Amino acid sequence: MTSGDYQVRPIGWVRSSLVDLTDAPKQGDEDAGPAELVFSAEFVDGLTDIEVGDSIVLLTWLDRASRDVLVVHPRDDMTRAPRGVFSTRAADRPNPIGLHRVVVTAIHGSTFTVNGLEAIDGTPILDVKPTLGPLDQR
Amino acid sequence: MTSGDYQVRPIGWVRSSLVDLTDAPKQGDEDAGPAELVFSAEFVDGLTDIEVGDSIVLLTWLDRASRDVLVVHPRDDMTRAPRGVFSTRAADRPNPIGLHRVVVTAIHGSTFTVNGLEAIDGTPILDVKPTLGPLDQR
Repeated sequence: MTSGDYQVRPIGWVRSSLVDLTDAPKQGDEDAGPAELVFSAEFVDGLTDIEVGDSIVLLTWLDRASRDVLVVHPRDDMTRAPRGVFSTRAADRPNPIGLHRVVVTAIHGSTFTVNGLEAIDGTPILDVKPTLGPLDQR
Repeated sequence: MTSGDYQVRPIGWVRSSLVDLTDAPKQGDEDAGPAELVFSAEFVDGLTDIEVGDSIVLLTWLDRASRDVLVVHPRDDMTRAPRGVFSTRAADRPNPIGLHRVVVTAIHGSTFTVNGLEAIDGTPILDVKPTLGPLDQR
């Protein structure tokens, strides 16, 4: 075991009409509008084989988050009991990695349009993964 | 938009009988044995409210991965056509973040026992999130 830190490097950024946190729905399946994923040209070879209609898992870096928070009120509702952050999806957490399931609705070069993403404009993208299908299709 | 890098910091480590990559099943639901999540004491307050029986999403840093890989053969099978890494779950990728859904089977202090984790011994843990239930239970 080591105790080292590791560097993540954005592969692209979210382009969205959501410009601040108070506009963002709390989860992607609650009424988020379309957004764009603008990938850096150097990563385009990794994006081949993703197609319109695919459901993908998107990992983002929530760069406005506070990283020293361990206890939160769910959904910022002060009437609800505080909870440990690791049993919530709060953005404020030691490693503020956002996890989103979205559907690709259009692809133009290295820009993807997706539905169901709650991230605010300018959010760095760290990774894209397929959602897992049945065992025999992996 | 910025082009900066960000530092992730492990909140704990995986303790597992899997000691190298060739032993690891390709996905967690394919016959992975029990493993332990050993969290650092400083993050324990964030773990309250996670209970035995909970299904959680675990994010890890796959520290043995190659970060300059953009195209892979699925499941290391050279007879299968190469694919862009972002349409696969390969460990080798620009930001090698592992995404695992596991079930908590025991909790002793800051050590959790889980089922269904394919990560090898010593893998750094970055984050824990709840799996999302129905809207009215968030």
